[in-house]
Amino acid sequence: MNFQIEQSDTHSKARAGEITTAHGKIQTPIFMPVGTVASVKSVHQRELRDDIKAQIILGNTYHLYLRPGIEILNKAGGLHKFMNWDLPILTDSGGFQVYSLSDRRKVSEEGVRFKSHIDGSYHMFSPEYSMEIQRNIGADIIMAFDELTGIPAQYKDAKRAMNVTHRWLERCKTWLNENPSLYGYEQTLYPIVQGNSFHDLRKESAEYIANFGAEGNAIGGLSVGEPEDVMYEITDLVTEILPKEKPRYLMGVGTPWNILECIALGIDQFDCVMPTRNARNGMLFTWNGVMNMKNAKWKDDFTPLDELGTSYVDSEYSKAYVRHLFISDEYLGKQIASVHNLAFYLDLVRTARKHILDGDFTQWKNQVVPKLRQRL
Amino acid sequence: MNFQIEQSDTHSKARAGEITTAHGKIQTPIFMPVGTVASVKSVHQRELRDDIKAQIILGNTYHLYLRPGIEILNKAGGLHKFMNWDLPILTDSGGFQVYSLSDRRKVSEEGVRFKSHIDGSYHMFSPEYSMEIQRNIGADIIMAFDELTGIPAQYKDAKRAMNVTHRWLERCKTWLNENPSLYGYEQTLYPIVQGNSFHDLRKESAEYIANFGAEGNAIGGLSVGEPEDVMYEITDLVTEILPKEKPRYLMGVGTPWNILECIALGIDQFDCVMPTRNARNGMLFTWNGVMNMKNAKWKDDFTPLDELGTSYVDSEYSKAYVRHLFISDEYLGKQIASVHNLAFYLDLVRTARKHILDGDFTQWKNQVVPKLRQRL
Ligand SMILES: [Zn+2]
Ligand SMILES: [Zn+2]
Repeated sequence: MNFQIEQSDTHSKARAGEITTAHGKIQTPIFMPVGTVASVKSVHQRELRDDIKAQIILGNTYHLYLRPGIEILNKAGGLHKFMNWDLPILTDSGGFQVYSLSDRRKVSEEGVRFKSHIDGSYHMFSPEYSMEIQRNIGADIIMAFDELTGIPAQYKDAKRAMNVTHRWLERCKTWLNENPSLYGYEQTLYPIVQGNSFHDLRKESAEYIANFGAEGNAIGGLSVGEPEDVMYEITDLVTEILPKEKPRYLMGVGTPWNILECIALGIDQFDCVMPTRNARNGMLFTWNGVMNMKNAKWKDDFTPLDELGTSYVDSEYSKAYVRHLFISDEYLGKQIASVHNLAFYLDLVRTARKHILDGDFTQWKNQVVPKLRQRL
Repeated sequence: MNFQIEQSDTHSKARAGEITTAHGKIQTPIFMPVGTVASVKSVHQRELRDDIKAQIILGNTYHLYLRPGIEILNKAGGLHKFMNWDLPILTDSGGFQVYSLSDRRKVSEEGVRFKSHIDGSYHMFSPEYSMEIQRNIGADIIMAFDELTGIPAQYKDAKRAMNVTHRWLERCKTWLNENPSLYGYEQTLYPIVQGNSFHDLRKESAEYIANFGAEGNAIGGLSVGEPEDVMYEITDLVTEILPKEKPRYLMGVGTPWNILECIALGIDQFDCVMPTRNARNGMLFTWNGVMNMKNAKWKDDFTPLDELGTSYVDSEYSKAYVRHLFISDEYLGKQIASVHNLAFYLDLVRTARKHILDGDFTQWKNQVVPKLRQRL
């Protein structure tokens, strides 16, 4: 993997860059649509590529491990071939999903024992096994196996989880060094900064990760329910320490305005289920604000779904039509909203990148954020 | 509307023709995908046009009347504009749907009083009101308001329903003659032959409809649970009587083999929810037979979904991948299967048409029907 910074903003920590992987280049800052279980929900791969213009997508190790399972993924020649997606893929480590299982998991130094949400069967993820699963999935960027704690948390719990995360990182590295690549291309490991909302822990973790010397670095354990200003504060603190010349990935963030604010704080990669999950509930993100498509105000608004939208659904369908689909519980509404929201998120980061290159990112960001937050 | 027969088969009653409407030409025999409530379920309009290659779609008057309602459809300038579908549309009359409500409806000479399946509110459809609704929807081909009876039925009930259907037909015609067109193009009324499974009633009804002198004619009240040979027998009897020079539409039929057999009996137009409904359950129709995508036999079959398929989903996705989507309850599986099945139905009638033009339709049909019925 290679990362080149093309332009850094003078009024913020924003930068425009390019990541090169075995499956192609990614222009940063970038949003990565979430393809949980080998499918970005309700969206065809063709739409993802040609209409949404995704440059990289995310897969979830926990879900892919359960279904279709690593045997099938291995036989297929990896996730790229299995789902017919030839551009870059990133996989998480399974750490966040097993954390979400809460009372269905038990953490030890060895790893995490958990019960499947599907059939209640018991499984064990260790740092080594997470690497082995991610090797079989075959993503271009893979994540270290980490432990996270919710916000708020006790200081001692947050500290213990951070230290476990650091020790597990060394075990991930060892496994990767001792086991050959599978499908003839390299996979790049990103370590994850933890430390909850505690400044000293975040600082310690960021320094540990910075010294680890990986080709890219991630910030985990945010966007777990904390106030926005805590998220920004921690992100700011961590990006001050993580090396400037490596891409930085803020996991699980967020709203359109979260993304612009965190680009200003030096983040290059984002992922979030929000554009697709909210789409299925009829919530559309646009440059003019947030639309609830179930609202009666759209019922005879025959103008295009989004005049400023970049995907075909924005001009092909009207607001009244999409509102009708949601009211009538026709699945096409969810499909349209999913394509729209993902295309919007990609347009958002593409436009942010353009303004970084233009040199007026901060001014533009401050103008656009209040509009993005409006309720239409 | 205009109908030209290009070629008639010498060994059967099959014919290849072309219907011309205000929204374009339809090459017959044709299958019309069902767009119940202004959406062919799980399929984008772009896919319908470019991948499935639908030439005409169907809308359901009952569903469209309830949602979005005729006021919205009128304001939109009709269903074509509302859903952004610029090719021909046919609407049913609401007769079949209110029949399906069974204990929630009451038939009188005036019409049918029924309770909405959505909110239990009471509504009344009369022949005149069905015409008024269909005028506001603005389909190119509209259907007479009819009463049907299930099979089996008492002779006296079937006879009464048939006679009501004939009287209602005259009221439909009167309403259409007395009320101007709405959106600047003509709508063509198809009357419907009823008579249940009784040969003398079907003969009487077919003669009545033939004498009515419409530009196209429909056969209703079949595919309601009767054995296939009854469906074929009645269709054969009725097409003997309906004028050869007018298109014939067999409502609600059916499986791929039903369609080929009924093309042989002189049918030109078909509609059915089967390709989309069965798709959502994981059942795919192909030239080699029927596939259940949930079957474990596909789990590591990485060959294309359908080597003989004509749509992009057939080559873009593998059997193992689509099986995985169904097993994981990912909606994309239903989307893929819906595009596949509809594209297959359109390929089926297009290929049948080619063989009618070639002059070897009957021989080809007899070879292909046993294959279509196979379980893979
Ligand atoms: Zn600019
Ligand atoms: Zn031939």
